[in-house]
Amino acid sequence: MAKDRVLSGMRPTGKLHFGHYKGVLTNWLKLQQEYDCYFFVADWHALTTDYADPSGVKENVKEMVLDWLSVGIDPAKSDIFLQSSVPEHAELMVLLSMITPVPWLERNPTYKEQQEELKDKDIHTHGFLGYPVLQTADIIIYKANKVPVGIDQAPHVELSREITRRFNNFYGKVFPEPQTLLAPTSKVLGTDGRKMSKSYNNSVYLTDPPATVEKKLKTMVTDTARQRKTDPGNPDICPFFETFHTLYASEAERAEIREGCTTAAFGCIDCKMRVIPKVLEELEPIQKKRAELEATPGIVESVLKDGTDRARAVAQTTMEEVRRAMGLNFF
Amino acid sequence: MAKDRVLSGMRPTGKLHFGHYKGVLTNWLKLQQEYDCYFFVADWHALTTDYADPSGVKENVKEMVLDWLSVGIDPAKSDIFLQSSVPEHAELMVLLSMITPVPWLERNPTYKEQQEELKDKDIHTHGFLGYPVLQTADIIIYKANKVPVGIDQAPHVELSREITRRFNNFYGKVFPEPQTLLAPTSKVLGTDGRKMSKSYNNSVYLTDPPATVEKKLKTMVTDTARQRKTDPGNPDICPFFETFHTLYASEAERAEIREGCTTAAFGCIDCKMRVIPKVLEELEPIQKKRAELEATPGIVESVLKDGTDRARAVAQTTMEEVRRAMGLNFF
Repeated sequence: MAKDRVLSGMRPTGKLHFGHYKGVLTNWLKLQQEYDCYFFVADWHALTTDYADPSGVKENVKEMVLDWLSVGIDPAKSDIFLQSSVPEHAELMVLLSMITPVPWLERNPTYKEQQEELKDKDIHTHGFLGYPVLQTADIIIYKANKVPVGIDQAPHVELSREITRRFNNFYGKVFPEPQTLLAPTSKVLGTDGRKMSKSYNNSVYLTDPPATVEKKLKTMVTDTARQRKTDPGNPDICPFFETFHTLYASEAERAEIREGCTTAAFGCIDCKMRVIPKVLEELEPIQKKRAELEATPGIVESVLKDGTDRARAVAQTTMEEVRRAMGLNFF
Repeated sequence: MAKDRVLSGMRPTGKLHFGHYKGVLTNWLKLQQEYDCYFFVADWHALTTDYADPSGVKENVKEMVLDWLSVGIDPAKSDIFLQSSVPEHAELMVLLSMITPVPWLERNPTYKEQQEELKDKDIHTHGFLGYPVLQTADIIIYKANKVPVGIDQAPHVELSREITRRFNNFYGKVFPEPQTLLAPTSKVLGTDGRKMSKSYNNSVYLTDPPATVEKKLKTMVTDTARQRKTDPGNPDICPFFETFHTLYASEAERAEIREGCTTAAFGCIDCKMRVIPKVLEELEPIQKKRAELEATPGIVESVLKDGTDRARAVAQTTMEEVRRAMGLNFF
């Protein structure tokens, strides 16, 4: 029996931080053991918001894929490719856009939200409005039947299913309807207590040297009401506890930490030092792998080239079927 | 000095009528003597309004191109190609859509007009909203600098110029701004006096047998106030005069006709018979050429294949330049 096929992508934002690692990549590592995985660099999607200056994209692609490979995303198991090098996505996008009602796209909650959030950018563009159509093309061109997303992204997959159903209704059942593969959401907070994000300048990167990681974690915000070491703290409002103790401490250790914090038995630095070595320990092989990869010239290019060639062959086969179904196969 | 490059396309609607012939093709025939012309079958554009059932597209492409060739559009002079077989148009369309503000598209008068006009079809789609973006891609991917349009289509070329300028501003001067090449508008009326249109069932086709043409023209509406042969008529409100006498009679003949009509010196049939033989005479070599083409198996396929190959090579060169300009040339 053939494995289910999973598709997932990330916009090329450059070096990855713990939010990407714990939020996405650890899930990908599990998925690649179980499924036929397509992981792609969504460089066209990056243009939906960053069209005005895409000059950094190439470097960002490289840094991101180095991080993917460093944590163990394995080109021998998964197909790793670059969206913009499979132009068939665009062809399918144009065809799907013909059957996608504008109101379906306007109803997409992210469309309004992002416009609010990115007030400094004019993203009221035809491309941004249509990014769920492009996303649908990304998924179904590989006939992927599973899409790993957090609960907040589930409406996007629902929209992809609707577009897919409409296509199949008009032209015959070419595509399977993609299913949501609910990914465990792990909210990773940054050093200032807000969501870890490159743009907040609060991130701990997979490529940060151990001393930098230690320093960032030691100075990370805790329970701000706890002014002195002798004040009792509240782990329930401590961003460090919420993120790093949750990720790296066992349940027993967390109970012990909770006890010590609320009774002021130890201070924040002592408390943090219970997991900081574990973080560094986990980073060590990742950084060792990265150093090896960086010493191999052209490794990212070769991995992407190989994955893109394989992905493109699949995409081309699908597009032949699409053109035939739509009567566009003139030759 | 290189010739200016002209791009023009038609949606594949099947066999062409006198409206297409006198409104578009006679202009193309002139253009191909003077310019480096790209004439394309806009089959993706046909999907913007006819996505629900594209089953007839293939046959329509064939009939239309047979008519192009029959009237003298010459593959040795002009590049004749099929839009959907140059998927680079879609790639450029996706990239241009990222920089095209939705309000620019909503302001396009045709967008609202067509929605009013085609009430029986749901064309409030992302693809229909974006058809000026696709049109821009169609034009600039060949770096065409002249676009022959009637005055009513001039706003579309203006929108293409705006999108082109925005691209050049962001990523460097890759494209020339396309210029409008104002085409002589010739309003061809159908047998019922309305604009000649396939959907009104009032058309005289280039492929109609001479007897059918004669019959359609003889029964074509004239000045409806002229009930009897002895009533004086008014050529200024006569659709036959407006169309066929204008197209086929000399100025002197028109003066004579005007005189005869307004004085009831002759009836409508006599009057029409002054140009009907000229229409048939013009059709004769066209129909002879068509018969020859129809007797040549695979002629349309071979013309389109050849033109598409040449067009695609140009489009691919442009896209390499586009990817380089946008920093998307990872490999």
